[in-house]
Amino acid sequence: MSTEYKYLSLIDSPDDLRKLPEEVLPELCEEIRNFMVDTITKIGGHLGAGLGVVELTVALHYVFNTPTDKIVFDVGHQGYPHKIITGRRDLLHTIRQKGGISGFLKPYESKYDAFGAGHASTSISAALGIAVARDLQGDDYKSIAVIGDGAMTGGLAYEALNNAGVQNRNLLVILNDNNISIDENVSAISHYFNELYSSHKIQKLKDNIYDAFGKVGERGDRVRKLVSRISGGVRSVITPGMLFEAFGFKYFGPIDGNNVHKIIKLLQNIKELQGPVFLHIVTEKGKGYALAENDSRKLHAVGSINKTTGLPLVSRTNTPQKYQDVFGEIVEYILNKDKKVVAISAAMIEGTGLETAAKKYPDRVFDVGIAEEHAVTFAAGLAIQGIKPIAAIYSSFMQRAFDNIIHDCALQNLHIVFALDRAGIVGEDGPTHHGVFDLAYLRMIPNMTIMAPKDNQELYNMIYTAVYNYDNCVAVRYPRGTGIGTASFSKLRYIPYGESEILEEGKDVCLIAVGRMVDIALKTREILLENGINAGVVNARFVKPLDTDMLNSVYKKYDCICTLEDGQKIGGFGDAVVEYFNNYNITNKQFNKPIHIFGYDDKFIDHGAVNELLKDNGLDPQSIADKIRNLFNIK
Amino acid sequence: MSTEYKYLSLIDSPDDLRKLPEEVLPELCEEIRNFMVDTITKIGGHLGAGLGVVELTVALHYVFNTPTDKIVFDVGHQGYPHKIITGRRDLLHTIRQKGGISGFLKPYESKYDAFGAGHASTSISAALGIAVARDLQGDDYKSIAVIGDGAMTGGLAYEALNNAGVQNRNLLVILNDNNISIDENVSAISHYFNELYSSHKIQKLKDNIYDAFGKVGERGDRVRKLVSRISGGVRSVITPGMLFEAFGFKYFGPIDGNNVHKIIKLLQNIKELQGPVFLHIVTEKGKGYALAENDSRKLHAVGSINKTTGLPLVSRTNTPQKYQDVFGEIVEYILNKDKKVVAISAAMIEGTGLETAAKKYPDRVFDVGIAEEHAVTFAAGLAIQGIKPIAAIYSSFMQRAFDNIIHDCALQNLHIVFALDRAGIVGEDGPTHHGVFDLAYLRMIPNMTIMAPKDNQELYNMIYTAVYNYDNCVAVRYPRGTGIGTASFSKLRYIPYGESEILEEGKDVCLIAVGRMVDIALKTREILLENGINAGVVNARFVKPLDTDMLNSVYKKYDCICTLEDGQKIGGFGDAVVEYFNNYNITNKQFNKPIHIFGYDDKFIDHGAVNELLKDNGLDPQSIADKIRNLFNIK
Repeated sequence: MSTEYKYLSLIDSPDDLRKLPEEVLPELCEEIRNFMVDTITKIGGHLGAGLGVVELTVALHYVFNTPTDKIVFDVGHQGYPHKIITGRRDLLHTIRQKGGISGFLKPYESKYDAFGAGHASTSISAALGIAVARDLQGDDYKSIAVIGDGAMTGGLAYEALNNAGVQNRNLLVILNDNNISIDENVSAISHYFNELYSSHKIQKLKDNIYDAFGKVGERGDRVRKLVSRISGGVRSVITPGMLFEAFGFKYFGPIDGNNVHKIIKLLQNIKELQGPVFLHIVTEKGKGYALAENDSRKLHAVGSINKTTGLPLVSRTNTPQKYQDVFGEIVEYILNKDKKVVAISAAMIEGTGLETAAKKYPDRVFDVGIAEEHAVTFAAGLAIQGIKPIAAIYSSFMQRAFDNIIHDCALQNLHIVFALDRAGIVGEDGPTHHGVFDLAYLRMIPNMTIMAPKDNQELYNMIYTAVYNYDNCVAVRYPRGTGIGTASFSKLRYIPYGESEILEEGKDVCLIAVGRMVDIALKTREILLENGINAGVVNARFVKPLDTDMLNSVYKKYDCICTLEDGQKIGGFGDAVVEYFNNYNITNKQFNKPIHIFGYDDKFIDHGAVNELLKDNGLDPQSIADKIRNLFNIK
Repeated sequence: MSTEYKYLSLIDSPDDLRKLPEEVLPELCEEIRNFMVDTITKIGGHLGAGLGVVELTVALHYVFNTPTDKIVFDVGHQGYPHKIITGRRDLLHTIRQKGGISGFLKPYESKYDAFGAGHASTSISAALGIAVARDLQGDDYKSIAVIGDGAMTGGLAYEALNNAGVQNRNLLVILNDNNISIDENVSAISHYFNELYSSHKIQKLKDNIYDAFGKVGERGDRVRKLVSRISGGVRSVITPGMLFEAFGFKYFGPIDGNNVHKIIKLLQNIKELQGPVFLHIVTEKGKGYALAENDSRKLHAVGSINKTTGLPLVSRTNTPQKYQDVFGEIVEYILNKDKKVVAISAAMIEGTGLETAAKKYPDRVFDVGIAEEHAVTFAAGLAIQGIKPIAAIYSSFMQRAFDNIIHDCALQNLHIVFALDRAGIVGEDGPTHHGVFDLAYLRMIPNMTIMAPKDNQELYNMIYTAVYNYDNCVAVRYPRGTGIGTASFSKLRYIPYGESEILEEGKDVCLIAVGRMVDIALKTREILLENGINAGVVNARFVKPLDTDMLNSVYKKYDCICTLEDGQKIGGFGDAVVEYFNNYNITNKQFNKPIHIFGYDDKFIDHGAVNELLKDNGLDPQSIADKIRNLFNIK
């Protein structure tokens, strides 16, 4: 470690941290911040969230006896400082890279990671489970959940708070309130609180509440004076404290979460309290890195950037459009021409490419917060009255709304477009974020149509077709990041329902590919041709319904058929094709030809670059070609 | 209609209701109540919920202009009075029967059913969607959600409230608070409120709050006087009103929901209010039917009963045990012998058979409320610290926790037992409750083991084995209701991992059956034998992993193989077998033998008796035998 890291270089575990005198901790925090910015701007990663919680993280490990005491971090974007002081400082430069440490927390990676995450709002449930396990086994440690204000909009957090209140276990929930989740939060209750904070009276109030354990200042009286009338009734004033106390928690805060001494003092004071305790801290996302402080959303996650300017080190000019940009454009196009269409996002307006559309059509682009279930059932309510909703949700997050798709949308056969962004493997975010289950979990649902575009233009066409030409639940799933080719409105056209597209006629083997795998199939064909194998290539376009005319003709023409999909094999597209041919054989009383399914085996896929992961899983052109050559016994 | 229904006989639609003078409505309510009790005690159905909301339902249709104004009932158990006054009075005796009206609300059934349901907590999201659709289309009608206090523990309701507050649409949410959800609610916030209600001061307060629109009585002052100190801090008092006002709603209530005049007056006063409005009514479940009032849980859903005694008309003595009883017994047995085991239910302690265990081991049987997501992630927290949780959740409700199973349990490879009750078709509750997707949605998840017992003893054995012999996520799925045979602890034994069981050796065809279908396969064998076809029968026991030794030997021995499952074909057990043999053929370079999959086609299955539905879907012994005889060309 370089000499600028005077204290950080001493910290190989929280034990080392706990040996330091408290007065040097602000300096240590500064070092952790510099170390994070230096490292992450070089290699990319999540920056803003971690910078905001440096003091909190140091204070937690300073006051609590980790890993005996358990800290459950919600989501995990904010886990970088935790990783740095729990033995992974010298591995930080490997974060999110193949073979390196994870961008999220993982019990398999470190005994200090009490529970894994990646999706939001799970921490209180998990910490409550840990607390109950402790009590049942007669152990004596602390269970602590650290959750951001964004994750607090998820219904799961509410279910857990509600249950924790009655269970009355020793449990500490820390709300890290930075007033900015990934996109600006759309939550009534946090608007309400923000309004309270910003009022001068409450501001003064906050400063006075707790200077030490149990001292309550003048809160009670002042709060009571804040009752004000609004038209139509009485508006009572509740503070966050009153709310969480109604849930059965003892509430402390809000306090300045970027003051390490204040947090330590408070944690020391409340750590032995009995029952559920709620600590509300306010932090600044991106704290200590000017660029991130000024634009905390942009620096939520970064690629390699120039530390001073914040500009990408690798120029992005002349690269093809990202699927997200393309999606944003076609949605904007449709919103412009049709007032009956709306778009819905669950806290991912920017991530899904809807930022421009949201600015232009604020009354028809809805951000419902981290609340995928509500997003989908809300869409169903819109659809049943004739509005055409486009619900844009990441594939892995849509798992949260699985029942809502079945119960509220498909069962009522409503016309809703599901844009499943970040489908297939997503790369560096790893197993919690890979969108590899969607083909399987959507395919089993009756009344569901599933499409996947081969390129940017086809994404235009599919969204357009889904809105205007079909009338049931339609899912369009597409990968994260750079697409293929350039999309143009002049080439916009409808896709005939259920029709695939033959891209190359072949002779020896037929490759039927879905979405991202179409381009890979074309490249596979090139390699096979060099080896004297002539492969046909079909762009499936539809995972459901299957294009049975195409399948029948392919079955007659080719002796060997391969399906290629960027998803789990179980229940996926290949399975659908195999099942189809099984029935075909029964009906036609003929023997089967084998179908080779290329997809992901029945295991979770780790993090790493997309191309590396494709190769690891045998889904790059060379691996596919090699496999096929083996089938033909060509060396 | 008999003459005792003086007013009800006049009501063929809400228009007829709206012609009546308000003063006769209490009499009408009485008639509706009698009509419900008379009809439902004869044929069975949901009783308590509907009886509680007779006045509310009458008032809603009296004040609002249905079907132009939209009423979204949460769940729908309480929809019977709504059905009676919206043109389905003379069909009530067909409710829940095949070809009859649904036990829940369905837009396809009536234009008065604004949105369908069956699962809890969806109504506010849907009603908000309807309100937004109205505003976007320049329409002018009301959107109203009616939700019970049980459904308010679901996170989805919170997500929707939170979002409705910021959207600021004209929307009326009516909380029907009967203090009893299906099982006693386990919710901190409702405990808190109940405590407030029961205090004498608040009781008087309630009576005074609103005698007319906007009149607020003395609430403000009185509430402020209720602040009381508790140890360790200040306990502020918030009322439900303050809470929902923080969400951005105008709050009215609580009022007596069984007084039709009071509700009508209040609805008339608030119907033109702008923005989101929250009306809190308190009703008595089972109101007006002494047996139901005294035991509102027992009469939540009834079979045919003697109206006076409440005793079943069909005696249940000497029928085999229900799977739910068997499950409860084995859980109790394990809890007794092992302090490291816990059971978790999401508001279905009684329904899943855990009532006795919950009474005996209250510290290790957890009811978390209607909160399936939390139930599963809470289980993960317990498991990561060495406790062995058994999470007992209905198969169709577990769809809500799909992501939690993937993200919190399987990805971390935790040892958790999922008891999926009411798997397969459930009969009269219909499409929202059929547990037909579970084999598919669980099978795609890595690290997951899936079992299904053929009879009561095997359910004992499977739960026992799952707890003690395996160490990953294990799902055991079994049907609603009467099982096969009698379970005994003396016959308790482990099931070897992944091993199926050959029940009958055959010659011509092999029937590989899952769970409930094993008994049906044995009966099919009998029919086939009479026709000269000798069928082997295998009890699969495992849907994942497949017993490949068994499959290989079956493949060699039989020319025709059938799989039988009580679940959707897409992604299910048959698909797994077909995919296995597809790969087997590739490896062994041989041609395939066709696999006949018996299961449910790709559509939703309506309500009706289980045996009728099995027959309709070709899954009764005779239909299966006929299909197989066709394959052999035997007439």
